[in-house]
Amino acid sequence: MDTLHVNADTKTYPVYIGEDLRYDVNRFLSKTYTAILIITDDCVGSHYLQDVKQALAHDRVFTHTIPAGEEAKSIDIFYQLQTKAITCGLDRQSLILALGGGVVGDAAGFVAATFMRGIDFVQMPTTILAHDSSVGGKVAINHEQGKNLIGSFYPPDAVIYDINTLHTLSNKEVRSGYAEIIKEALLGDADFFHELINQRLASLTNRQLTDHIRKGINIKASIVEQDERESNIRKFLNLGHTLGHALESLLGYGKWTHGELVAVGLLFAIRVSEKSFSTNLPFDELYTWLKNNGYPLALPVIDPGDVLSKMKLDKKAFNSEVQMVLLQAVGRPSMAEVDDCALLDYLESFFEELTHRN
Amino acid sequence: MDTLHVNADTKTYPVYIGEDLRYDVNRFLSKTYTAILIITDDCVGSHYLQDVKQALAHDRVFTHTIPAGEEAKSIDIFYQLQTKAITCGLDRQSLILALGGGVVGDAAGFVAATFMRGIDFVQMPTTILAHDSSVGGKVAINHEQGKNLIGSFYPPDAVIYDINTLHTLSNKEVRSGYAEIIKEALLGDADFFHELINQRLASLTNRQLTDHIRKGINIKASIVEQDERESNIRKFLNLGHTLGHALESLLGYGKWTHGELVAVGLLFAIRVSEKSFSTNLPFDELYTWLKNNGYPLALPVIDPGDVLSKMKLDKKAFNSEVQMVLLQAVGRPSMAEVDDCALLDYLESFFEELTHRN
Repeated sequence: MDTLHVNADTKTYPVYIGEDLRYDVNRFLSKTYTAILIITDDCVGSHYLQDVKQALAHDRVFTHTIPAGEEAKSIDIFYQLQTKAITCGLDRQSLILALGGGVVGDAAGFVAATFMRGIDFVQMPTTILAHDSSVGGKVAINHEQGKNLIGSFYPPDAVIYDINTLHTLSNKEVRSGYAEIIKEALLGDADFFHELINQRLASLTNRQLTDHIRKGINIKASIVEQDERESNIRKFLNLGHTLGHALESLLGYGKWTHGELVAVGLLFAIRVSEKSFSTNLPFDELYTWLKNNGYPLALPVIDPGDVLSKMKLDKKAFNSEVQMVLLQAVGRPSMAEVDDCALLDYLESFFEELTHRN
Repeated sequence: MDTLHVNADTKTYPVYIGEDLRYDVNRFLSKTYTAILIITDDCVGSHYLQDVKQALAHDRVFTHTIPAGEEAKSIDIFYQLQTKAITCGLDRQSLILALGGGVVGDAAGFVAATFMRGIDFVQMPTTILAHDSSVGGKVAINHEQGKNLIGSFYPPDAVIYDINTLHTLSNKEVRSGYAEIIKEALLGDADFFHELINQRLASLTNRQLTDHIRKGINIKASIVEQDERESNIRKFLNLGHTLGHALESLLGYGKWTHGELVAVGLLFAIRVSEKSFSTNLPFDELYTWLKNNGYPLALPVIDPGDVLSKMKLDKKAFNSEVQMVLLQAVGRPSMAEVDDCALLDYLESFFEELTHRN
């Protein structure tokens, strides 16, 4: 088992990563709680809920299962979860335990952040992608008019990552999670990046999964620790997301995963970086690795103008020019404002290149 | 104008107290905001909203009026306010300004705490009682099953107290606010307590109002600063509230104000303190002052057993015995667990005494 410690601005919390930790979850709780409410979704719950419930060996463990998928981050389910917490008699010395991916973590975390003005919160991520949301303290639900618009900064009290719960993930979900790990490597660790692109996702061992998740978390944590409030360097974490989010919104959620579109966004950020800094970056290596590992790189025909409009609508970019994270080198990110004309050019030639290569 | 500074655990914020500050509100904002949303209720709004809006002299000021009263702290109105903030195009560099009493402060504060994971929040309290909720950083809405169950700790960025907005308060509201000021004096400052009980509420000057609110805030702030998370000495602020809350819940909200019942609770806490510590406390002086200032001290007949049950249900007391704040002397509070039999005796003789005196 690997243990690391993340410093949030209000507390330091441990992240445990290893095999079969779900059978031993009690060992990782730092307190005795008056009651524990496990929140999970109907997919994950059917695989792992009983294991965790049994391992807690507590006579006041309650469970609540929400539907799998982004729709569960609604105000109605938020209120249902609050009702559940009250009905079960949770108090300020109780715990909410999120068993699932990013959606469960976000929704359960926001309930923990706001139930009686905040109670303890432990995450047990069951996707690779959730390694990302388990660091940084962001919890939120969606508003009909936008994702994650209602939320808080509320770091967990512990993260317990059972690597064996990742074997039930689909290939799509593995790809989605690894796009964020690739992003973290590009931001902070050139050696790690090269290690990753020499690795086939289909043949990952538990030891490799553990290493990769730990390294990804470490890079993200070191960025977040320097900037708990997303004002400056935290923006680096948006590498690949300027185009990624715009594509998600244009192509609709569901067919491509978040990470798959972030992967396309990473390629784009690398191309723009090469042109902006007149330098060579490992575009070809990343492209080949993505292709070999089944990432969908053939996008439908999209108008670069529509993409630009979406980029400008992104809630993090109310300025007139689009802010992008670029790379001066692997491991050396920087922010740049890219004017609309240049961005349109970049988008056009990037889409052409993707079509041409396919 | 008086200025004081409150240290919350995440920031220090100023409290400005003085006459006609609403005409000058711009001067007290520390930043230039992209947009400002004023949240008020239909009572306060009709008196002061235009003054504040004009004084802000900003081309993106929006307003939203919620119904006056506790019912406005609902999940539905919370969501409406989030929708309003989105529709008006508020972003992370925008401000929510709460113009009103405790309900407006709580509801608007919780929206500010959770909109895009937290934006700036300024309070303009328009009741005396709200001096209490403007310190301590508690913001919350109600759940159908209990008050303030959904919320956060989220201190404001500034509190702007225009003393002249207090002249539209009813006598009941003045009494309600002063009960909390009396409580603060009992907790922290014997001289202040004696000053207060030599003062008739009907003849308060603006200078006295300013002084009393400032002293009350100072006492509360010094307690909260030592304990931002309500685990230890912050509990002292519940002086008078153990019985006060139980009576509120038994007698129904509305006929008696919160502060009026806290006043009865203060008398009770003093009597129990006298018996527990075999000491003399200013019960008679406080009783006479409350009587002379129109506080309703003649309660309907209540079964002490019902009161005890309510006390035990209080969300802050899940232990088997009721915790009460007692006074070893004026200015020297301490916590005590009072066993059920003793508490029943105290309640019975206290209710008899009230009936007898009336």
